[in-house]
Amino acid sequence: MKAGRFQYCLRANRIDLALLLNLDSLDYNHNMLYFTGYKGIGVFLIPKNKKPFLVVPEMEVERAKKSFNKVCQFDKKRLFESIKQILRKNKVKFRTLGIDYSSININAFRALKKEFKKTKIKDVSKELLNLRKIKDEEELKNLRKSCSIADSIVRKCLKSFKKFRTEKDVAFFLEYEAKKASCGLSFPPIVASGKNASMPHYEPQNIELKKGFCVIDFGVKYRGYCSDITRTVYIGKPSEKEKQIYNFLLKIQNNLIKNIKINKKCDKIYNECVKQLNNYSKYFTHGLGHGVGVEIHDKIGNKMVFTIEPGIYVANKFGIRIEDTVLFDKKVSILTKTTKEMVIV
Amino acid sequence: MKAGRFQYCLRANRIDLALLLNLDSLDYNHNMLYFTGYKGIGVFLIPKNKKPFLVVPEMEVERAKKSFNKVCQFDKKRLFESIKQILRKNKVKFRTLGIDYSSININAFRALKKEFKKTKIKDVSKELLNLRKIKDEEELKNLRKSCSIADSIVRKCLKSFKKFRTEKDVAFFLEYEAKKASCGLSFPPIVASGKNASMPHYEPQNIELKKGFCVIDFGVKYRGYCSDITRTVYIGKPSEKEKQIYNFLLKIQNNLIKNIKINKKCDKIYNECVKQLNNYSKYFTHGLGHGVGVEIHDKIGNKMVFTIEPGIYVANKFGIRIEDTVLFDKKVSILTKTTKEMVIV
Repeated sequence: MKAGRFQYCLRANRIDLALLLNLDSLDYNHNMLYFTGYKGIGVFLIPKNKKPFLVVPEMEVERAKKSFNKVCQFDKKRLFESIKQILRKNKVKFRTLGIDYSSININAFRALKKEFKKTKIKDVSKELLNLRKIKDEEELKNLRKSCSIADSIVRKCLKSFKKFRTEKDVAFFLEYEAKKASCGLSFPPIVASGKNASMPHYEPQNIELKKGFCVIDFGVKYRGYCSDITRTVYIGKPSEKEKQIYNFLLKIQNNLIKNIKINKKCDKIYNECVKQLNNYSKYFTHGLGHGVGVEIHDKIGNKMVFTIEPGIYVANKFGIRIEDTVLFDKKVSILTKTTKEMVIV
Repeated sequence: MKAGRFQYCLRANRIDLALLLNLDSLDYNHNMLYFTGYKGIGVFLIPKNKKPFLVVPEMEVERAKKSFNKVCQFDKKRLFESIKQILRKNKVKFRTLGIDYSSININAFRALKKEFKKTKIKDVSKELLNLRKIKDEEELKNLRKSCSIADSIVRKCLKSFKKFRTEKDVAFFLEYEAKKASCGLSFPPIVASGKNASMPHYEPQNIELKKGFCVIDFGVKYRGYCSDITRTVYIGKPSEKEKQIYNFLLKIQNNLIKNIKINKKCDKIYNECVKQLNNYSKYFTHGLGHGVGVEIHDKIGNKMVFTIEPGIYVANKFGIRIEDTVLFDKKVSILTKTTKEMVIV
């Protein structure tokens, strides 16, 4: 069980209790979702050696129980005071409290500290990251499935490309297919044609698809697990030079993936990319990839899932990006399998 | 201009410079969006009496310039250090720095304090809330339009209701119509039928619509401005008792709206609701409403837009909620105009 792994880590760090919270009904706490499946307002309490429990406002009790088996109710008006009472009632004793410093805001932190005056507070954001970047078998199953769904949607999209008129048409097709597959989106799809493709995080507009490279960046969320894939198609007839630059980037992307090894530092992979891009490296304006589910900043380890997505962006001219979601588990395997050969539509 | 109003407030509070930030590419800072129209990673700097500027990583420069006219580039690896340099270069002098304590996390706050050691840091979260809860004419125009789009989609949905088989069908229809109207969503639509309706924040499932009350909570985002409307329809043939309870709640909702007055405290409106619900008040498990665009906790003032949404939820039995978005501007006006008479589908 995921919470069990975290409790092990709490004990190793001499932390008696961890507290995760989400106070925004329009947002959710990723770590709370990871442990409980619950997305709403609430506080998740993980004692180092007792069953964890989820504490929510009255209106969410019934919904929370559908996701997690131990649910209590707090009084929203005196949140941390009622959390303290619940802990007392459940006989949870603690001197050291672990808090995720990367998700709590200053106002909430101050209110918490005021109520837990005698408690030593420690940051557990790094511990949560480390825990979450190593996937268990069920997570890997969900990630594979997520990538395969994204793949089949992207393939269908490329096949149907002729019928799209605007960037939004393409984005809408991708969203619609995700819905049909009962999936959410990893993020709003990016469809950037013509010179818009030089903006890596461009938002698709209601404008006609322009000739040239068109970057399509898409991913679905299957049981909470994200996929992430980018393919750059060519609208119209590419020149020799355009084919060359596409294949140049593709070769680099394949090389980078092939050379991923255990304990290799992420920085090193990035530097290899910059070196291989050579004169084009000044047009590579973002990071090489990111963890899927959680950021990976350090070294590559077994059972990590992340993206490799080099790109070339020339402002007001064009953009190309090729991205795969990959799993490293003794060796590297590419989870997104849509062709990377240049697709001309 | 919105930033101008905030600068006035900075001067009144003897704050030389405000800094808003978003470091999460999958999230955005609502206040930064409010001032700049920009959603990506970045830092927004508002000197008390100089033109504000947006500072973003290299990959976002081109995109940010489409939203805001003064854009600089920061070095992501040494974020606050490069922010300091940019401020120096732009000759912004400051001793007091305003930060939104409700949106910055502890890790970012500590990194910032380390770099701005000699600067006095003050919370501006309340000032931002106060600023944003009073709408200007353009904002009101957008809010009205947003509500009227939501209205026409809800009406169309009620008319088409016979063709829906599952809760997800209804939700998908609402989402699809929002897309067609070139709008985003205020939140994922809630469609809760049968006993699911007793969960105020229920997520629609791929299950057949059940007989009884069905809560439909929906809103679109038009130019960033949200609408929010809930209608509870009845699937099948309601009993006399069911009609009674629906009309009981509707009467209360209408009464509450009618009695909104300037300077009336939000608490007082809530207490009136509880009093009128009488024996049913124990089944009213959430707040009475919320600001649209920004929370309103205190008193009703002119040019505020908020919701009034009483509900009755009996666990494992049924749920009813009736919600309007209303504007107070000397007098109250209801912006969501879809009928509130019981619709039987």
